[in-house]
Amino acid sequence: MAGKLKIALLGAGRIGKLHGTNVQNVIPDAEIIVVADPFMNDDMRAWAASVGIPYCTDKMDEVFENPEVDAVFICSSTDTHADLMIKAAKAGKHIFCEKPIHTDVAKIEEALAAVKEAGVKLCVGFVRRFDHNHKTVRDTVASGQLGRAHVIKITSRDPAAPPMEYVKVSGGIFLDMMIHDFDMARYLAGSDVTEVTAYGACLIDPDFAKYDDVDTAIVMLKFANGAIGVIDNSRQAPYGYDQRTEVHCEKGCVQVANDLNNTSMISTAEGVTCAKPTWFFLERYNNAFIYEVKEFVDAVLNDKEVLVSGEDGLAPVKIAIAAKKSLLEGRPVKISEI
Amino acid sequence: MAGKLKIALLGAGRIGKLHGTNVQNVIPDAEIIVVADPFMNDDMRAWAASVGIPYCTDKMDEVFENPEVDAVFICSSTDTHADLMIKAAKAGKHIFCEKPIHTDVAKIEEALAAVKEAGVKLCVGFVRRFDHNHKTVRDTVASGQLGRAHVIKITSRDPAAPPMEYVKVSGGIFLDMMIHDFDMARYLAGSDVTEVTAYGACLIDPDFAKYDDVDTAIVMLKFANGAIGVIDNSRQAPYGYDQRTEVHCEKGCVQVANDLNNTSMISTAEGVTCAKPTWFFLERYNNAFIYEVKEFVDAVLNDKEVLVSGEDGLAPVKIAIAAKKSLLEGRPVKISEI
Amino acid sequence: MAGKLKIALLGAGRIGKLHGTNVQNVIPDAEIIVVADPFMNDDMRAWAASVGIPYCTDKMDEVFENPEVDAVFICSSTDTHADLMIKAAKAGKHIFCEKPIHTDVAKIEEALAAVKEAGVKLCVGFVRRFDHNHKTVRDTVASGQLGRAHVIKITSRDPAAPPMEYVKVSGGIFLDMMIHDFDMARYLAGSDVTEVTAYGACLIDPDFAKYDDVDTAIVMLKFANGAIGVIDNSRQAPYGYDQRTEVHCEKGCVQVANDLNNTSMISTAEGVTCAKPTWFFLERYNNAFIYEVKEFVDAVLNDKEVLVSGEDGLAPVKIAIAAKKSLLEGRPVKISEI
Amino acid sequence: MAGKLKIALLGAGRIGKLHGTNVQNVIPDAEIIVVADPFMNDDMRAWAASVGIPYCTDKMDEVFENPEVDAVFICSSTDTHADLMIKAAKAGKHIFCEKPIHTDVAKIEEALAAVKEAGVKLCVGFVRRFDHNHKTVRDTVASGQLGRAHVIKITSRDPAAPPMEYVKVSGGIFLDMMIHDFDMARYLAGSDVTEVTAYGACLIDPDFAKYDDVDTAIVMLKFANGAIGVIDNSRQAPYGYDQRTEVHCEKGCVQVANDLNNTSMISTAEGVTCAKPTWFFLERYNNAFIYEVKEFVDAVLNDKEVLVSGEDGLAPVKIAIAAKKSLLEGRPVKISEI
Repeated sequence: MAGKLKIALLGAGRIGKLHGTNVQNVIPDAEIIVVADPFMNDDMRAWAASVGIPYCTDKMDEVFENPEVDAVFICSSTDTHADLMIKAAKAGKHIFCEKPIHTDVAKIEEALAAVKEAGVKLCVGFVRRFDHNHKTVRDTVASGQLGRAHVIKITSRDPAAPPMEYVKVSGGIFLDMMIHDFDMARYLAGSDVTEVTAYGACLIDPDFAKYDDVDTAIVMLKFANGAIGVIDNSRQAPYGYDQRTEVHCEKGCVQVANDLNNTSMISTAEGVTCAKPTWFFLERYNNAFIYEVKEFVDAVLNDKEVLVSGEDGLAPVKIAIAAKKSLLEGRPVKISEI
Repeated sequence: MAGKLKIALLGAGRIGKLHGTNVQNVIPDAEIIVVADPFMNDDMRAWAASVGIPYCTDKMDEVFENPEVDAVFICSSTDTHADLMIKAAKAGKHIFCEKPIHTDVAKIEEALAAVKEAGVKLCVGFVRRFDHNHKTVRDTVASGQLGRAHVIKITSRDPAAPPMEYVKVSGGIFLDMMIHDFDMARYLAGSDVTEVTAYGACLIDPDFAKYDDVDTAIVMLKFANGAIGVIDNSRQAPYGYDQRTEVHCEKGCVQVANDLNNTSMISTAEGVTCAKPTWFFLERYNNAFIYEVKEFVDAVLNDKEVLVSGEDGLAPVKIAIAAKKSLLEGRPVKISEI
Repeated sequence: MAGKLKIALLGAGRIGKLHGTNVQNVIPDAEIIVVADPFMNDDMRAWAASVGIPYCTDKMDEVFENPEVDAVFICSSTDTHADLMIKAAKAGKHIFCEKPIHTDVAKIEEALAAVKEAGVKLCVGFVRRFDHNHKTVRDTVASGQLGRAHVIKITSRDPAAPPMEYVKVSGGIFLDMMIHDFDMARYLAGSDVTEVTAYGACLIDPDFAKYDDVDTAIVMLKFANGAIGVIDNSRQAPYGYDQRTEVHCEKGCVQVANDLNNTSMISTAEGVTCAKPTWFFLERYNNAFIYEVKEFVDAVLNDKEVLVSGEDGLAPVKIAIAAKKSLLEGRPVKISEI
Repeated sequence: MAGKLKIALLGAGRIGKLHGTNVQNVIPDAEIIVVADPFMNDDMRAWAASVGIPYCTDKMDEVFENPEVDAVFICSSTDTHADLMIKAAKAGKHIFCEKPIHTDVAKIEEALAAVKEAGVKLCVGFVRRFDHNHKTVRDTVASGQLGRAHVIKITSRDPAAPPMEYVKVSGGIFLDMMIHDFDMARYLAGSDVTEVTAYGACLIDPDFAKYDDVDTAIVMLKFANGAIGVIDNSRQAPYGYDQRTEVHCEKGCVQVANDLNNTSMISTAEGVTCAKPTWFFLERYNNAFIYEVKEFVDAVLNDKEVLVSGEDGLAPVKIAIAAKKSLLEGRPVKISEI
């Protein structure tokens, strides 16, 4: 494909604006030519103008009919992802889709089938794969220098719990939050997950229980390659976003610590204090959001493989559903049951 | 009790010599006056002489009849601990007993009953409670400064797998190795464990499977106080002894890293290298072994409470048995089932 | 001042392009409207087009006559800075000037007088003041929480020596490289330097000696507020850019370590390896270059004080000249001698 | 020499008791057979009894006449070291002597001559050479793996200033405190110091000035092998004993951080806190004191070279005198001037 990749942004909420700003400012090989949002408003229009996007509309379908559009970024609400993906595929547009594709496995499979039939590129936005730290873990494991993977450990804790309004419609901790870690587990292990067992508790706020949800969870995993693993999640780590991964292999271990706000150490008679981790995902994965889009643009322009496939978008959803089932039924659940 | 505590050492293998040497060299308030070992040999006698122990015998029973003896250190093979404990209790001797008391719950209960009836002090040798790192985690949690405990995480990996001869009679990874971590879990959480689920695999050496054992395991725990936790064990971490603990609480997290051989950092064009963790338990828990005995001696001499009670000796055995059951049956197991 | 700040970029070499790209992409309140470079070429024009700069010229003077231009960024060769500053001041343009203003004290004083007379804003490009690490050191000291500053220590080592062609015209290690650290010393101490003593050696390459220069240097400093300090520089740290600062005060110490490429730790039987520091100033001070310009734009638009004044531009030049004198004469040299 | 090394302890103050306790408890190849102290008192006798030393006297000369004594540990006040060393040498006793041998160069030379003539072993107590951290720095440099040494940096800061009574007779910061670092500099560089320049200030307590002393000092060094270096000292680092060393070489850098009380990290909304460095030299160099004596005992028993020779005892005294001269005269001072 010659020239710049011309992108239509579908959905201009927080994540849509983030991607849009990145494309306009720091991705020289791409440009947003239209923003479509059914709830288009003045704030969105002002933002679009400020980053040099020439056109805004509240009609999503315009985008699919526009022959100028090479690719779409699906950044709308989760329930609309799959249908937009199907429309985009049918219109022959390449697709970057925020996670999750959907929370219903059948719907995801329908969307993936459409993508396959259309032969367009699809990349799902599991942004943590592009983080300089986690990527180092994965690359070290994938290089084979440490031999076979034995144990995958992931710590993932949000700095503050979302409002109950959000919790209510979130799909629960496994589909909303740990889904990132299920993807990370597959990415680090280089293998599919075959079974999970979940423990969970409401320790931050008893109201989570009202929605059959928990705010604190630990999940053990079995992988197809024989490795085992564990993920722990909390909705509230008051010291900041806690994002650590660790893989133990035959010949050694690779692990990454949190990024900190700075490297300072202040030593006094009272003690030694260091900087806290970067606050939340916008701070921690700031550069990863850029690399993610760069890789997608490069994959489309130069016909390379995308780094997070449709299958990679489906698998964590299944694992999340299995984890929820395990929690509710108090037993190990195989992914093949889902 | 006035003057020095007079101790009989029962069993002069590796751990017996370690405690004996510590008592003679660095515990001014105690002295070993006799070593009894049914397999008493020249090597043991030479060691006893070198640390100034005046008398050796191969007759364990002499010790119980000796009115000079205030306390016994039970450092013989595991299967003899409970019976020696009962004899010592009946003879009115205070008891320091290496872990585990026994692998049979009924036998442990019998021994604890004897101790209770005799009214002697009993301390069980869960040495890691005296480690400067883990103790800091526990003290921080126990202080309440971080609020209620939510998640307890323990990493415990040995540097090298034991010989298969040992594995065969070890009782399996849960009773032999993870038992330390089950104790640590109770110690850090300040609460009893109520349920476990175990995942395990033979990744180091397939021969572990011959003995219904695994070499790699992850166990999730539920605690009576509502917290949840996870422990991971490996029989072989080629970089050295990996001993880390971490507790997440309402207001924050306390965690400890490994002790390293030194604090060096060597930076070259090829990379940055640091020292490895201290090799194994003798190096890592060197000082903890001393504090453990100091505390016991102090508890007896000054009639204080011991820091690892008989009940603390029993509980991890039950958890280990439950973990093994979970692994074999592929389901969560409640401790109350044991 | 209403609207965006309209900037003329004077000099489109490496640093000019860096600032220009940042202004165009990530400084919403400013825009480059013209690039002037006496050696304007196709490469510069292509770059300008790629970041949306509408006009290029090889005539610097056009800029001063252009009433649209609010401010100039002086990024040309060092020997031209002072004269351009004078012209810009006379034309009533605000000035961002790369360091150093000049290597001749009288010439700097002449330029500063012109700026003062014109009443325009002037900010000198000591970018390290805007680094998240060093800024934390400075802010901690300036807050007074640690009491009076006692000792300032700065480590500053480049990853690789420049070519001898550059060394020849560089002005020597003190004016070319340690000048950043002299500025840092004043910034961290919150006080002027009054005396220096320099030790130096040619340990990387004996050819430095051909130009009365050294490749390795240590300089001790006395400050007006009674503190003392030390800076060490090397032209070649093969492991990467080594940029650490440390201030010891009455009540404690604040120090910062290097930023690393990632937080990974790989542990094997052979040892433990970590990531290296970010490679050089473009990587390490990437964000600082952005903050620096943001602050300048804000100072001009909102009539605030600039963070690196003309006086801050002059003082390190004097210290550098004194350090060179100290090295050559083998004695402490007071800044008042310069 | 067959059997245990029989040692007479000369001086039973703090450091004498420390060495005596170590010999009795953890050095199996040696024993203290007599303690001589002109101020022998009940406290010293009680201590001697508690560690199993059979005989105490207030007559130092008895020791030299006692044919049972193989070696003496000179732990008396500094001004008596040289004369005792001469007596011991003449009596054919091997000598471990606390630092410094004396503060007068001529007196040291006289004592060293006596040692040389007698052909006895002499080891001077620069204990930091035996520290696991600094020794790693030295061994890395000495191995040649990093190539030629370029820059030696030493940070050495005491947790609390001594009483003025002590300062008055201490000989000043260079002879009393930095002398350890001058030895460390020679040890790490593997080369003699040829010149120093000192900066100093009274920032902790103005009373230091009453005794021509300073409480804060930085000294630059030139080494015979072309390397340069810097040491900074403070009498008061409220966060604890700060003992770091760092050597930059042709191919890279080796550095060591402080030992900490534990590896804990506590993270809350308020910040992240870590443990402080071990408090002072008794804590930090606890093991080094043991290795130091082990090495001396081994050198005598097996006729090996001692690790800190008489010359190593003299050189730092000369450097300290030169540093004081530099501070008072405000100029670089060559060691050859002393």
